[in-house]
Amino acid sequence: MTEFIPPGTRWLDLPSPFAMKRGGSLHGARLAYETWGQLDPARGNAILILPGLSPDAHAAANTGNPEPGWWEAMLGPGKPIDTDRWFVVCVNSLGSCKGSTGPASIDPASGAPYRLDFPELSIEDGADAAFHLVRALGIERLACVIGNSMGGMSALAYLLRHPGSARAHLNISGAAHALPFSIAIRSLQREAIRLDPQWNNGDYDDAHYPESGMRMARKLGVITYRSALEWDGRFGRVRLDQSRQEHDRRDDEDPFGLEFEVESYLEGHARRFVRRFDPNCYLYLSRSMDWFDLAEYCDAPCGDRGGDVLQALAKIRVDKALAIGVSTDILFPLQQQEQVADGLRAGGADASFLPLDSPQGHDAFLVDFARFGPAVRGFLDAL
Amino acid sequence: MTEFIPPGTRWLDLPSPFAMKRGGSLHGARLAYETWGQLDPARGNAILILPGLSPDAHAAANTGNPEPGWWEAMLGPGKPIDTDRWFVVCVNSLGSCKGSTGPASIDPASGAPYRLDFPELSIEDGADAAFHLVRALGIERLACVIGNSMGGMSALAYLLRHPGSARAHLNISGAAHALPFSIAIRSLQREAIRLDPQWNNGDYDDAHYPESGMRMARKLGVITYRSALEWDGRFGRVRLDQSRQEHDRRDDEDPFGLEFEVESYLEGHARRFVRRFDPNCYLYLSRSMDWFDLAEYCDAPCGDRGGDVLQALAKIRVDKALAIGVSTDILFPLQQQEQVADGLRAGGADASFLPLDSPQGHDAFLVDFARFGPAVRGFLDAL
Repeated sequence: MTEFIPPGTRWLDLPSPFAMKRGGSLHGARLAYETWGQLDPARGNAILILPGLSPDAHAAANTGNPEPGWWEAMLGPGKPIDTDRWFVVCVNSLGSCKGSTGPASIDPASGAPYRLDFPELSIEDGADAAFHLVRALGIERLACVIGNSMGGMSALAYLLRHPGSARAHLNISGAAHALPFSIAIRSLQREAIRLDPQWNNGDYDDAHYPESGMRMARKLGVITYRSALEWDGRFGRVRLDQSRQEHDRRDDEDPFGLEFEVESYLEGHARRFVRRFDPNCYLYLSRSMDWFDLAEYCDAPCGDRGGDVLQALAKIRVDKALAIGVSTDILFPLQQQEQVADGLRAGGADASFLPLDSPQGHDAFLVDFARFGPAVRGFLDAL
Repeated sequence: MTEFIPPGTRWLDLPSPFAMKRGGSLHGARLAYETWGQLDPARGNAILILPGLSPDAHAAANTGNPEPGWWEAMLGPGKPIDTDRWFVVCVNSLGSCKGSTGPASIDPASGAPYRLDFPELSIEDGADAAFHLVRALGIERLACVIGNSMGGMSALAYLLRHPGSARAHLNISGAAHALPFSIAIRSLQREAIRLDPQWNNGDYDDAHYPESGMRMARKLGVITYRSALEWDGRFGRVRLDQSRQEHDRRDDEDPFGLEFEVESYLEGHARRFVRRFDPNCYLYLSRSMDWFDLAEYCDAPCGDRGGDVLQALAKIRVDKALAIGVSTDILFPLQQQEQVADGLRAGGADASFLPLDSPQGHDAFLVDFARFGPAVRGFLDAL
């Protein structure tokens, strides 16, 4: 398994055994993380970032690794998440393959990779692992937990399972449970991987690798992370340049090959991803999102799912919260962030919902800094 | 190849050779169709329905076939498309496999199925074939051309290439060109089929059939035909009934198997489809939609794609037009039907745009009769 762990990654050894929500436990597991800024003497200026499915812990350049990170425009001195003021911690999710323990890691019991012997992974396991890290860094109470996408789920699990662990919460394109439409898309992504004969029930290697399945899964991901509106302006109906060598371009030999720029864009994205993310880790993380449902924490189920989710959200105690969503997001639609704000407000938080008109869909927080920058800065500055 | 041709299907022999837009021609090709109602003596009450990618010509019960059709609620005596008043014709698209000539048909030159030797198929070829049928039925001028989805593209091609051929046009969830987001989705569907080793470059049979690829393609189709909003109300997070036997259900043997009702719904839909639609026909029809761009017919390209599309639409001459779209449609988004209405109006038509709030996405016209029924009835009644 090819792992891509950024230089400068730091590790926390998790308690061993580390019990998993759905049963089983991990031995000798660790969590990869990076930090920015200085923890103040009162330890009151700490922010935890819980990322989406695929990112590593390298959200931005730091002393350990000067390379730009996946949220470079948002995180650093003077930036919206201002590291002159805040001490920021970002993790690689438990179950991932960018340094944290996951299905691609060595199982100490066998000396071989866990693969499908990794215990069933829940969003809650990742949240609990991050909580151990925060405590190990000497932080009793975070100033804010920021969660993006899947991380928005993790953040809610974190806050609910660890009362009093944070003063504020910023939920970005997250959700309190998975919707059936998103479950359907992720199920299809997993099916693409599982259908690839090279997946071989999880037992692949670099020479026999489920490349096609991963490529399909990633393309479907990229499609659903963006929006029709954005791509119309970006690609239109432009054809591939006939003079350039392109992979799989449509010609007499391959009449159904790639023809439009948008197809080539997807192909390029997918090719860059498939060997940089472990397929089994992808399956585990993807499934953990489908399973996530904060309504499980509702004390007195009212039988109405939306009501149960709101009840569970209202058990979370934070002083301030902001849930940001994007109107063109089809994967975590706007109603889900509104629900998060409503539920946290019902729990007593000063909670707001901010819908943004970004054309970039679910991924807008990774690219639309003109809208997300001021929104995040405004919320954090007022803490 | 298993074909599913409804009983009562009628056929028109197309002119032979039948020249195709992108080159090549068909010999001995035919178009499958059905009719409802009576053509009046003045031959002025004829409506042509051009369907989406997968339907056959059996839109509703008729004397030749009393089984309900795919638009049963919309078409019949006293229904929104009232066959007491209108003589209605519906075709199976050229290139399909429900009776019309397509890649699964026998090539008279070889005596074997065309497969990938079928000439490149354009939306325009289907429109021209339908025009021949209408003329052969003795109809000089249609009262209305109705096009749904892909049929909305076909209808625009029909009207532009055959001036004066219709008095009115009803465009339902259609478009004047394919958007890159929709191209990306269809490209991925085709890739799923092409990646299936059983596709075998188009050379499959019933015993060696690209079942997995077709299943993936269909699931992705069904996902993008509907909407997150609808599925939340419909499936929620309901799990599969543990007491029932289900295909591929998640268990210890298959930890990534199906678990949620929405996954089983998709699986059922896909299984019903894969053996009822020819994979090569699917590839040809899907690609023809990507290629469709009415801007090709613009006389004086202005360099702005949207402007070119509007110019081309304005060349169409009809008296009245209505373009209906649905706010939750991600495949043919609302802006595309607004563009159709704007362009037809610029060409002198009394053209309206009607956005509907159906939660069912692109497929709403097949299910949301409470909204579509009155809209279609109102337009036709006023003709």
